[in-house]
Amino acid sequence: MKRTSRDIRTANRYEVLRQIIAKSPVSRQELATATGLSLATVATLVGELLDLGMLTEVGFEDSAGGRPRGLLAVDASGGALIGVDIAETYVRVELFDLALNVLARAAEDMRPGESRPEQVVERVASAVEAVVARAGGGAARVLGVGVSVPGQVDRDTGIAEYAPNWDWHDVPLLDLLAERLPHPIHLDNPLRACTVAELWFGAARGRGDAVVVNLGTGVGAGLALGGGLHRGVSNSAGEWGHTTLVLNGRPCHCGNHGCVETYVGAPGIMLNLRESGPDSPLLRPGDQTATIEALARGAAAGDPVAVEVVRDTARYLGAGIAALVNLLNPEVVVLSSWVAAALGEPLLRDVRDAVARHALQRPLAATEIVLSPVPGDPVCLGAATFALEGALDAAGLRPVNGATAGRRSVPAEPLPAEPVTVRPVTVGSTPVEGRTAPLS
Amino acid sequence: MKRTSRDIRTANRYEVLRQIIAKSPVSRQELATATGLSLATVATLVGELLDLGMLTEVGFEDSAGGRPRGLLAVDASGGALIGVDIAETYVRVELFDLALNVLARAAEDMRPGESRPEQVVERVASAVEAVVARAGGGAARVLGVGVSVPGQVDRDTGIAEYAPNWDWHDVPLLDLLAERLPHPIHLDNPLRACTVAELWFGAARGRGDAVVVNLGTGVGAGLALGGGLHRGVSNSAGEWGHTTLVLNGRPCHCGNHGCVETYVGAPGIMLNLRESGPDSPLLRPGDQTATIEALARGAAAGDPVAVEVVRDTARYLGAGIAALVNLLNPEVVVLSSWVAAALGEPLLRDVRDAVARHALQRPLAATEIVLSPVPGDPVCLGAATFALEGALDAAGLRPVNGATAGRRSVPAEPLPAEPVTVRPVTVGSTPVEGRTAPLS
Ligand SMILES: [Zn+2]
Ligand SMILES: [Zn+2]
Repeated sequence: MKRTSRDIRTANRYEVLRQIIAKSPVSRQELATATGLSLATVATLVGELLDLGMLTEVGFEDSAGGRPRGLLAVDASGGALIGVDIAETYVRVELFDLALNVLARAAEDMRPGESRPEQVVERVASAVEAVVARAGGGAARVLGVGVSVPGQVDRDTGIAEYAPNWDWHDVPLLDLLAERLPHPIHLDNPLRACTVAELWFGAARGRGDAVVVNLGTGVGAGLALGGGLHRGVSNSAGEWGHTTLVLNGRPCHCGNHGCVETYVGAPGIMLNLRESGPDSPLLRPGDQTATIEALARGAAAGDPVAVEVVRDTARYLGAGIAALVNLLNPEVVVLSSWVAAALGEPLLRDVRDAVARHALQRPLAATEIVLSPVPGDPVCLGAATFALEGALDAAGLRPVNGATAGRRSVPAEPLPAEPVTVRPVTVGSTPVEGRTAPLS
Repeated sequence: MKRTSRDIRTANRYEVLRQIIAKSPVSRQELATATGLSLATVATLVGELLDLGMLTEVGFEDSAGGRPRGLLAVDASGGALIGVDIAETYVRVELFDLALNVLARAAEDMRPGESRPEQVVERVASAVEAVVARAGGGAARVLGVGVSVPGQVDRDTGIAEYAPNWDWHDVPLLDLLAERLPHPIHLDNPLRACTVAELWFGAARGRGDAVVVNLGTGVGAGLALGGGLHRGVSNSAGEWGHTTLVLNGRPCHCGNHGCVETYVGAPGIMLNLRESGPDSPLLRPGDQTATIEALARGAAAGDPVAVEVVRDTARYLGAGIAALVNLLNPEVVVLSSWVAAALGEPLLRDVRDAVARHALQRPLAATEIVLSPVPGDPVCLGAATFALEGALDAAGLRPVNGATAGRRSVPAEPLPAEPVTVRPVTVGSTPVEGRTAPLS
């Protein structure tokens, strides 16, 4: 869709808050420099965020001779955000403060055969209740719940259109969740959750164009272009796993042959291992997680089969990533999700080699390839970020205080903003370096 | 790079002029509706364009009871733009008015062995002089010359970094051209020129996300995302031709094997023909243009070899385009450039079938695949559009009148705007439908 001035206001609001979270405490002038926006625009956006109770003025910068400048920080207590990561084998839920520090966690296993929508919703609801109870007073104002569910998701209708591993078709997941949860709910998928987590808190923050290569059971390539998530015209951009890598290659559940996913997704890597070492003790039939972990330990210890499997996987991955580098000319490619986290540096090294062999020189020279620096579960963090974005989208309509924001709420009259607590903190003229790791 | 508020102002300026060219004559209110910008923003941008002498007020809309609203049109006489298409075998130059109507054309053949930079610059300079002479008074104010040259181009330094077919390396083409041409010069490559032509005047206009698949001797995929050209971090986005389509397939001049280009670029299609019909009379050894034209005539006449070659080519192309559809989820995919124009409807039909077999259902359902509707040489038109964008980029600094705009000019004081001629044209309340074909 075309960018409207409303889209641009929203994007600017995101960018300002992103920079405040990154660099807190920070002055309006520093924000203008960091975002490229005018000081007047920054002042307006900061005013909105102050009215929303999301920010607090933490003191004044010691300016030698000039007039004092107010420093801004996120008001961590301004509201809570919940991120839900529904995966094939577990449900993880985390409750965050507004600075995206984790206040409470809960997880539930999902056994095979317990993947009916009602069962999944039950697990989510009880885990959400658990984190709210654990967070105590910190959960007084839940601004929203972001929920990530695998597969194709229509975020506007809240329908999980297709989840291949569970054979879900057109499940009205948002409605089912809304019957159990009293908070505004934002539904999306893990690929976009990871990408948004990188954009707000990881390797894509402050970068113009980034590709987040998501390596899990499935495989995708989230696109963060021009500082925003590229969703495509029907919110399905990033389906990179079903790009043909090998003509007439391995069969894929999508109906095609030789898809990227069949070589570099966790089940594909298990196949690579089966081909390289059919009798390898690293192979744990039927258990992706255990196999990938065994492979990671083996590669670190120099086990020749493990080393070969990681290299083969990197070769397939590198050919695919080179095509992304050529096509999109990104500033950074981030390897994300649990398979990338497990295989770590050895995979990264081999991928860099393989991409260098396949990519054109000019885009290659402009691209950095890194492992995701986001600690913890990036899907929970990204899902919570969708809830944060939802609260920001509602801004300008009315304050988000009182947990009435989001698409599920009835229109409300603007509430008077709560008085802002000014904590008299003295900070030197050098801004305090922001945390890059938002999780505690 | 990140979007700054200056980028956004520039993008909005483009969008407003694009809509005025498309819908002229048009009211400010209609522009606000068409662009999603506020009426105040539209009024400011229109004011700038009026000051620049690019627009004219053509009369007032008959509004029943309301106050009369001024209608705007491009002032075609407000300046001339020149587009230069340097190709492997020819140089084409076209001179346009500000509404992008062609006022004059010139073309020069380039024989093999005449591709040294000095020789190419000589051809360009004489063709530019020829169109300026032919256009007579229309060329009084050339606002800029856009030049498209194949290969990798650094538009900021004006260096043709790599042109594989001529073995050019780091040619300072902009400097060489500037010695011969007294106008502001904007250098870029044919892929981006075609994409910008689709964005301003073709199938990508008014669409959110579009992919322009360029089928010539080389192959690329220009990306028009969010209403703007996606250039990537070092201006090389769109290098799709060197995506591996067939593992260990045909050798490519890039050093890899099985690149898309080796199957669907003109020389690749000649190979497809050689494989399907080694003795086919359609094959004109050493002559890409003649072979593709013979193939097009053969396919139209039902020649079985030609039909098979078009289908095979479409099969390769479809697999590649399906990957783009999955990854980017575009609203439209445009088949552009001379090979697509020659093979036309039969190619389009087979490509649609092949993409439908390979793409995922959700992005497929959201994507239309079309032949480029841009008549004439889209590279010349796109190159001239770069000159127009260059003139608009200079706006806000000073008026472009007087041919001093562009990166080659010295900073000048703002000139007083020329008085605007108001032609008293009466137009009904229904806006006149815009031309979709900007070329006369
Ligand atoms: Zn597949
Ligand atoms: Zn190649």
